[in-house]
Amino acid sequence: MSKREESRKYEEIIRLALERGFFMPSSEIYGDAPAGFWDYGPLGVGLKRKFIELWRRELVKRDGMLEIDGAQVLSKKVFQASGHLESFVDPIARCKRCKAIYRLDKLIEEKTGIHVPERMSLEEMRKIVKEHDIRCGRCGGELTEFSHFNMMFRLGIGVIGADAYLRPETCQNIFIDFLRIYKTMRKNLPFAIAQVGKSFRNEISPRQGLLRMREFYQAEIEVFFNPKKANEFPKAEPIMDYELRLQPIGKDEPLEVTCREALNSGLISCKLIAYYLSLIQQFYEKAGIPREKIRLRQLGEDEKAFYAVEAWDLEVETSLGWIELVACNNRGTHDLGGHQKFSGHEMEVLDDGEKVLPHVFELSMGVDRSIYCILENALDLEAGKPVLRLPPHLASIEVAVLPLLSKEPFTSKAREIYESLKLEFDVEYDDSGSIGRRYVRLDEIGVPICITVDHQTLEDNTVTLRFRDSALQLRADLEEIVDILKNHLRYSV
Amino acid sequence: MSKREESRKYEEIIRLALERGFFMPSSEIYGDAPAGFWDYGPLGVGLKRKFIELWRRELVKRDGMLEIDGAQVLSKKVFQASGHLESFVDPIARCKRCKAIYRLDKLIEEKTGIHVPERMSLEEMRKIVKEHDIRCGRCGGELTEFSHFNMMFRLGIGVIGADAYLRPETCQNIFIDFLRIYKTMRKNLPFAIAQVGKSFRNEISPRQGLLRMREFYQAEIEVFFNPKKANEFPKAEPIMDYELRLQPIGKDEPLEVTCREALNSGLISCKLIAYYLSLIQQFYEKAGIPREKIRLRQLGEDEKAFYAVEAWDLEVETSLGWIELVACNNRGTHDLGGHQKFSGHEMEVLDDGEKVLPHVFELSMGVDRSIYCILENALDLEAGKPVLRLPPHLASIEVAVLPLLSKEPFTSKAREIYESLKLEFDVEYDDSGSIGRRYVRLDEIGVPICITVDHQTLEDNTVTLRFRDSALQLRADLEEIVDILKNHLRYSV
Repeated sequence: MSKREESRKYEEIIRLALERGFFMPSSEIYGDAPAGFWDYGPLGVGLKRKFIELWRRELVKRDGMLEIDGAQVLSKKVFQASGHLESFVDPIARCKRCKAIYRLDKLIEEKTGIHVPERMSLEEMRKIVKEHDIRCGRCGGELTEFSHFNMMFRLGIGVIGADAYLRPETCQNIFIDFLRIYKTMRKNLPFAIAQVGKSFRNEISPRQGLLRMREFYQAEIEVFFNPKKANEFPKAEPIMDYELRLQPIGKDEPLEVTCREALNSGLISCKLIAYYLSLIQQFYEKAGIPREKIRLRQLGEDEKAFYAVEAWDLEVETSLGWIELVACNNRGTHDLGGHQKFSGHEMEVLDDGEKVLPHVFELSMGVDRSIYCILENALDLEAGKPVLRLPPHLASIEVAVLPLLSKEPFTSKAREIYESLKLEFDVEYDDSGSIGRRYVRLDEIGVPICITVDHQTLEDNTVTLRFRDSALQLRADLEEIVDILKNHLRYSV
Repeated sequence: MSKREESRKYEEIIRLALERGFFMPSSEIYGDAPAGFWDYGPLGVGLKRKFIELWRRELVKRDGMLEIDGAQVLSKKVFQASGHLESFVDPIARCKRCKAIYRLDKLIEEKTGIHVPERMSLEEMRKIVKEHDIRCGRCGGELTEFSHFNMMFRLGIGVIGADAYLRPETCQNIFIDFLRIYKTMRKNLPFAIAQVGKSFRNEISPRQGLLRMREFYQAEIEVFFNPKKANEFPKAEPIMDYELRLQPIGKDEPLEVTCREALNSGLISCKLIAYYLSLIQQFYEKAGIPREKIRLRQLGEDEKAFYAVEAWDLEVETSLGWIELVACNNRGTHDLGGHQKFSGHEMEVLDDGEKVLPHVFELSMGVDRSIYCILENALDLEAGKPVLRLPPHLASIEVAVLPLLSKEPFTSKAREIYESLKLEFDVEYDDSGSIGRRYVRLDEIGVPICITVDHQTLEDNTVTLRFRDSALQLRADLEEIVDILKNHLRYSV
């Protein structure tokens, strides 16, 4: 693909999203609505739902995980224990003259190229600003009021307004519910709890559509394990020859390494982590992202979250560069240890007679970003008109039923077929405009199969099936189409 | 069922929920966590997901609705336009002595039996309090500080903390996105937009588990229509003989009335509303609620929401009395009219050449309450031990695979069957304790089918299938079980 086509892709996705109803800015009829909030339209809802169903099938069900769905509003104590009240902050500064607010770490990186690690103090940042004479980008004013801004949204509960917060990550529910789930679901270590839902971060400058939002979907998996046994993990045996695309610290390109090699060389610390990294890489391959656009990048000390022991980011290459989709972190005992201390409830469990405070390995997925990457990867601009080559099992509309001409008896027959399929498949009926224009629109929104009712249909009950990707046209008897659709559309590996 | 058994049911559901992982209070390890927030555990997540899938199938897909999924945080302007900033309030008062806060309307109703309509002024309530000498229930102190408390949660966006609110109902996204959806999805009136998601209300006294929460799931449907044509509605023809269970204003019992009769007598104003009322009643029948426990109760002037023209509540009878599950409101032009005025965007659309500001008929469903009613209805205490007779298509775990004895080669064979079924069905493997005790637990959590691997299995590859409701035990070849499971578990009407 040419450079020019690559750079067009982000804009094309936004155009497609707005014109065809994949997603749109929330409250857009109110011009001054806050940024960073987006709504999924009908086509986006279907795609997102199928993406989450694939996640549930390929991770939750395949691995036998438990799934929960917890409250988004959590007590202040939860975030004292998790460290978010103190540490979930961005450094900011304000222009003395025009009062514009800047995110300090980003501003320094932009102006000087100096990398600002997560733990750099405000004092150090102030020094860099002074040395490099960094000023307000708008008016050239001096920067002042260096401070930390907590990114959690605060709420007041009840008439008295007791402190609570919207969760900045879904996983806290999993940690605070761990004890009850462990007891009621009669699990032994290692086992995983998963959750999909909204999280909220008061970003200083949300941007780029679904890529940095203030309200967003996460699908998070927390694996609880005994660290002494992380390398005794029978489930890993079948994936030992699977090739991960790992990019170790200090390398510029990913390497194709089998799990076995990665473990033998010490690049990955244990079989349990190798297994879950292989699951998540396979998941994106099943979501239609080509292997060569996926990498698992190892994070260095200055990049890791404050709680991480070992950290890999699953990233996907797009026209905007590599985008982080899943943070894969060994969080150690940070979470259960913190909640144990603050709540006074013992979080240790018995593992073969030994008392263990479980360690946690996390797969924290950004759903909206994943949707963006899947859309961008599917969008084919080569053919002169956009074709959205979504994998059939992710297509929001699976089948379109079209009367060749927009008049009787074609329309009645097409309606009848639509009615017979609508509960079992995601079907659209479309009789507007020429058949050629309808095919163009249906290609653009990624419908894998069209069923056309033509003159011959009225004679012999056969229809034309048109396949988006092959442009193949087949004649099939109406009796056969349910089976053909199932074979073509349903994912089964 | 005896009175005593009825009154046990609420407590039994809570016990079952906590002990088996259907739902639990959020942040429960922190003793002082705010009330009104609940988490779904693994069994609850499955039930809720299947309930929502049934809603999507039986309402959204059957009717050809569009579905969206919008932001939960909305701009202040949205709630100026909707009237919530001004009108979404509860009257409260405070005890002068002990500072306890009371919801005034509920307190008056409790102490005097006087019904307090939604629009009663604070002045009128103050008069009643004085006349009846209503005092603080705890300390007998005088009530003071009569005021209105807005039930929306306020948030501050960005560093400056711009006003925004968590939506108190999901439908506002639908109204503010109406124009874009209408244009991009090329629909004509009448058509419906649906959404399922979280809403938030700062209740003064949340109570009774899933029945009055501060954070809860709604599944809302907004039907946009031309009021002049609400009685020309071809889709209503097939349901004209369907019997609604309507309870008109002034009646104590529901009547069985066909849609035709309800329309002819003027009880229901138009075919469009009769059609959607029949859809929603049928939906609860398909969710396993017996007809005789369902009613559509007509709301009088003093009960209706401030925006409603015609209002019916779908209610289900439980041990706690009749519970409102779906508010069915003709909202008229309240919503689109309000947003048109505040945003300056014209919301009128063309309908056969005529410019129309669409009216809105709403089906606003409480999902969590529905889950409670389904659980209570399914719970059978007659057999001496609890059996949860969930409809198979709503069961969180569809199949359990059990080795007769918890040792080889039974366990390996059972594991193998579990692995072969786990992606296609919701399956649990259980080898703990005696087979009898396992059946008891699996009945309690509502698993419709158990597959037992016994001595004969090892000889001829047949297993015992045990059906929860009939307690029938069948021998079947392993080759046949996928088909048997599909026939028994999958909903298709």
